[in-house]
Amino acid sequence: MFTNTLYFDIPSTPKTEELWNKISAEYKSNAVGYYDLPINGEKLLLDIGTWGAGLRNIKNIVVIGVGGSSLGTKALYSMLFCEKKSDMPNLYFLENIDPVSIKKTLQNIKLDESIFLLISKSGTTLDTISIAKIVMVHFDIFPHDKYFSRRFAVITDNGSALNKFANEYGLKSFFIPKNVGGRFSVLSAAGIVPLTLCGIDTIKLLEGAAECRSNFFGRKLDTLFKKALAYTVKSGQNINILFSYSDIFRDFNAWFVQLWAESLGKKRGEERIGLTPVGLIGAIDQHSFLQLVMEGPKDKSVTFIRVENMADDMQIPDISLKYIEKVNLKRGVSAAALLNEQAVATMKSVVNEGVITDEIVLTTADAYHAGYLIYYFELLTSLCGLLLEINTYNQPGVEIGKRILLNKLGK
Amino acid sequence: MFTNTLYFDIPSTPKTEELWNKISAEYKSNAVGYYDLPINGEKLLLDIGTWGAGLRNIKNIVVIGVGGSSLGTKALYSMLFCEKKSDMPNLYFLENIDPVSIKKTLQNIKLDESIFLLISKSGTTLDTISIAKIVMVHFDIFPHDKYFSRRFAVITDNGSALNKFANEYGLKSFFIPKNVGGRFSVLSAAGIVPLTLCGIDTIKLLEGAAECRSNFFGRKLDTLFKKALAYTVKSGQNINILFSYSDIFRDFNAWFVQLWAESLGKKRGEERIGLTPVGLIGAIDQHSFLQLVMEGPKDKSVTFIRVENMADDMQIPDISLKYIEKVNLKRGVSAAALLNEQAVATMKSVVNEGVITDEIVLTTADAYHAGYLIYYFELLTSLCGLLLEINTYNQPGVEIGKRILLNKLGK
Repeated sequence: MFTNTLYFDIPSTPKTEELWNKISAEYKSNAVGYYDLPINGEKLLLDIGTWGAGLRNIKNIVVIGVGGSSLGTKALYSMLFCEKKSDMPNLYFLENIDPVSIKKTLQNIKLDESIFLLISKSGTTLDTISIAKIVMVHFDIFPHDKYFSRRFAVITDNGSALNKFANEYGLKSFFIPKNVGGRFSVLSAAGIVPLTLCGIDTIKLLEGAAECRSNFFGRKLDTLFKKALAYTVKSGQNINILFSYSDIFRDFNAWFVQLWAESLGKKRGEERIGLTPVGLIGAIDQHSFLQLVMEGPKDKSVTFIRVENMADDMQIPDISLKYIEKVNLKRGVSAAALLNEQAVATMKSVVNEGVITDEIVLTTADAYHAGYLIYYFELLTSLCGLLLEINTYNQPGVEIGKRILLNKLGK
Repeated sequence: MFTNTLYFDIPSTPKTEELWNKISAEYKSNAVGYYDLPINGEKLLLDIGTWGAGLRNIKNIVVIGVGGSSLGTKALYSMLFCEKKSDMPNLYFLENIDPVSIKKTLQNIKLDESIFLLISKSGTTLDTISIAKIVMVHFDIFPHDKYFSRRFAVITDNGSALNKFANEYGLKSFFIPKNVGGRFSVLSAAGIVPLTLCGIDTIKLLEGAAECRSNFFGRKLDTLFKKALAYTVKSGQNINILFSYSDIFRDFNAWFVQLWAESLGKKRGEERIGLTPVGLIGAIDQHSFLQLVMEGPKDKSVTFIRVENMADDMQIPDISLKYIEKVNLKRGVSAAALLNEQAVATMKSVVNEGVITDEIVLTTADAYHAGYLIYYFELLTSLCGLLLEINTYNQPGVEIGKRILLNKLGK
């Protein structure tokens, strides 16, 4: 079960109806393609199955991609790692043109046990292509080589430069639908291909997302409207914190940060609009950022995420250490219970300070709930974008730096 | 060499002199102990050397600690990992009461090859002590056992409950000076013990910090005053971004976030004061948060950090991939050069938007520069705290949640 409890109240206003009409219109326009990804996965899964059936002795799937081409996959892989069967391939990411981390990652990988997935929606992401070239030289394998198409595949837009490259050399191409933006693409081929190849239950993942979709468009998710309204009122909080209780959410936080910052930071005419995302991990960041939430400016909202039944739970031993008896716990408290109770206690203290707070509880962190969670945050982002009256799906601000760079280093 | 170039200007005002007087007074008062850590390391290093000489066949140093007891050590270990000799022990961290990550970490560790460092300044950090109990049961080793004191040591305040526990069972205790707060303690025993045991050059680390100290108190670091003044003006930016170009800085960012948020988020009477830290990694987050910096509200400052000469650099091969020629680079560009040029190009685009921007360049990411960097940010935090007229060194806001929790789960 997925529950989201709000510890603030926003009455149903005419704005709610207006917002519903807007998102319905956006959905029907077909301009934004992510809405239907959860119900359109069948063909893709068949395609992966057919292609994957030809792979033998693969121990590593290596994603070469950045931003929307890696963050979502990484988020789900980390969250669902406990569910992965040990005989399925491991997933690696080459996402930064950082020689130290590239070298470290390549040390773990043998060519003949690996599949490299070149992922770029546009097909011409500088870092991604540069890393791919480094990989080719490292393993001494090039597009003209006989075995190149057995080791490399691409995930991109149909007709992109990368797709043409793949066609030229006989590589398999998977496609990201044209109307699906990079940061909304994790439930398309961009995420589903690597995750399926690693043994993540992507059928359940899509089912969870489909359930969220059907609840939302069946008007059963009023919480999303209330949250979007609360976050976008002018006098309100413009820093939105995700306080996720478990290390398995570290990469999910990073995915959320991209989704939120890149979607909702936009110029609207002369005006600069934007909500600032912050990802925290509980209980660790109780010893860090929490002080600022408790006593700093009231410009923040906090969403707590926790998992009721965690994998690999263990008891906290009921032993007493001399002189440190002060922190003895009742008999039978498990690590997961302590983590959950830390979340609840911290949440209470934050609510007491009058901070806009809500709590998401997943029964378990399995593929189904992960799919639900992903889609839930995508919907929330779309709703906020509509309320802010900006284009949620583009990213014009990042082009300038790219031009400056290519002017200097490009051929 | 360590350089910090500002791309904004703040004239020298009477405030600069006032601030100098305040920090001099704070330094002389002896109430804040971190200032002198870089020049007081000798005795500690000797102590570690003597104790460490008795250790045999140690492959793992396991830090059990959270917040100020882990973040700084982790930051330096990640940054300096390339410098570590491969025959020195690896460092592990048990910092979250998360059953999934505890299990994962313990899988890598054998008892008779490991030293466990229980780190808690107060000596009664609930999560830390609970994790320690899990470790004891996992390896079936308890305080009364003959070999317990060969496997466990503590780092804490002199006279704390944990110190008394250590004395009772013959464990080695290292001390964090009383006037050094957790988040300012990385250059004390809290960080120096685990880092030295792993073969990090902590002498150079302290030398770098000492150089920064001597430059600052010799009034050669005007940049710090200008930055502090820029960040704390009322109408100014209250979100401070650290955009660090290299994956080696990921944990440094987390250390900065704690230092900044927990030090500078405080109630001043009825007023809520605070600066919000954000850690980004380049080039990855150019594909994420950057859009918000470029087009979102002007409530942010950005500090770029980059390393001129990176370890393990590699050439980006001068090969051309058919159809993807658009992103071909000039001959001879290395991965580190591309990463650095990405930083420079992005910085230019951010400066063009009128965002308060500055750039820190380290010649190399070695122990000396790391020490300088750590101390530099500690000084900046102290200066901002003085300008905001708050207590930089306490954290009253996080106690409430702890009380709620112990009421529920405590004995």
